[in-house]
Amino acid sequence: MAIVMYDLAGADPDLRFSPYCWRTRMALAHKGLAVETIPWRFTEKDVIAFSGQERVPVIRDGDRVVSDSWAIAEYLEDAYPDRPSLFGGAGGRAHARFVNAWADGVMLPGIARLIVRDLLDVVDARDRGYFRQSREARFGRTLEAVQEGREGRLAEFQASLLPVRLVLGRQTWLGGGAPSYADHILFGTLQWPWCASSFELLAADDPIAGWRERMFDLFEGLGRRAKRAG
Amino acid sequence: MAIVMYDLAGADPDLRFSPYCWRTRMALAHKGLAVETIPWRFTEKDVIAFSGQERVPVIRDGDRVVSDSWAIAEYLEDAYPDRPSLFGGAGGRAHARFVNAWADGVMLPGIARLIVRDLLDVVDARDRGYFRQSREARFGRTLEAVQEGREGRLAEFQASLLPVRLVLGRQTWLGGGAPSYADHILFGTLQWPWCASSFELLAADDPIAGWRERMFDLFEGLGRRAKRAG
Repeated sequence: MAIVMYDLAGADPDLRFSPYCWRTRMALAHKGLAVETIPWRFTEKDVIAFSGQERVPVIRDGDRVVSDSWAIAEYLEDAYPDRPSLFGGAGGRAHARFVNAWADGVMLPGIARLIVRDLLDVVDARDRGYFRQSREARFGRTLEAVQEGREGRLAEFQASLLPVRLVLGRQTWLGGGAPSYADHILFGTLQWPWCASSFELLAADDPIAGWRERMFDLFEGLGRRAKRAG
Repeated sequence: MAIVMYDLAGADPDLRFSPYCWRTRMALAHKGLAVETIPWRFTEKDVIAFSGQERVPVIRDGDRVVSDSWAIAEYLEDAYPDRPSLFGGAGGRAHARFVNAWADGVMLPGIARLIVRDLLDVVDARDRGYFRQSREARFGRTLEAVQEGREGRLAEFQASLLPVRLVLGRQTWLGGGAPSYADHILFGTLQWPWCASSFELLAADDPIAGWRERMFDLFEGLGRRAKRAG
């Protein structure tokens, strides 16, 4: 029986743009596990109430329910030890937490400041009021004001990715000789703007763009085949 | 026979303040390897010419010579596999590269902007001209201008450490249940300002300060016993 995953969707149910859900999609594919995704909208809190919290991704694997992308990755690694490893051992798991923390604490806010107004155009009609209100409360400004002048701030965002660039100058994947969950964390985070906005964040000659092409090739082009807005 | 390590020293030969050398000191202690350190100054390029490059740390282990703190950590892990692991497996090693890249690309420049003028007061008399010239060329400004107004910029530096704080909210060490080379990378980087400057970078209630206290306790207080300037 396939694992069921609640996956953030836009007005177009095929548009799946959550950075956290993408981490989980890639982790499931890495483990070679079949998944049935259920489109979910921000305001459908009741639909995932069974998980004891209000955010996606949520997976149901038989009797087990797990939420939070990091917790799901750990669950999959422990529940399916004979499948390809996401972390490459205990040290790999411990250190991947730093990559996760950096993606959450640096990359996500950096990307939000560049595309958050675009997101409003892709979310479901039922979600628009919730999305604007909750995000504007977080930023303390309108979505338009947050995103304004992004062309002039793009270089700063690109500079913030320096650690990734330094690693890719030394090895093919963040996971070393093969992709690991660390790669999926970063790739999932970049799928968010790639799917939901037409504003390109990476210069074509950025080594990170080259790495993303390699990530696009994984799992029969899972990431590349994703529906994009516009 | 003890491993020999060339270690950056100040005018006071007991003042050892290189962030890279501290990473190696901690890695050697982690492996339980005896070390004889040789104080070295920036301008003594000829003394380490045998290593084929001009920077410390350099170690000599019998016939083997290794330079660059990351390469040394990898060497120690491979040459002493029966000693406590620095990386916790292949995944741990691959992912530790990201921590190393983040420390080099974000932390080190951030710290330099706060203490680089202080460094001039501790380097050996022979090194002062070289130090000022090379660093001012790198910054394009005088050391005094770079450091000026640091009190007002401290919060920004502290904010840049958010990923570390997020990880320490979830686990005791960057290495998980026990310290790993990832911890030594960060700790070594913080020993640089701690040894060479009286400007305190961490607030007393910062979880990173608490973690540093635990790091100070390791290896019979190796880090805590370090000579400090002033």
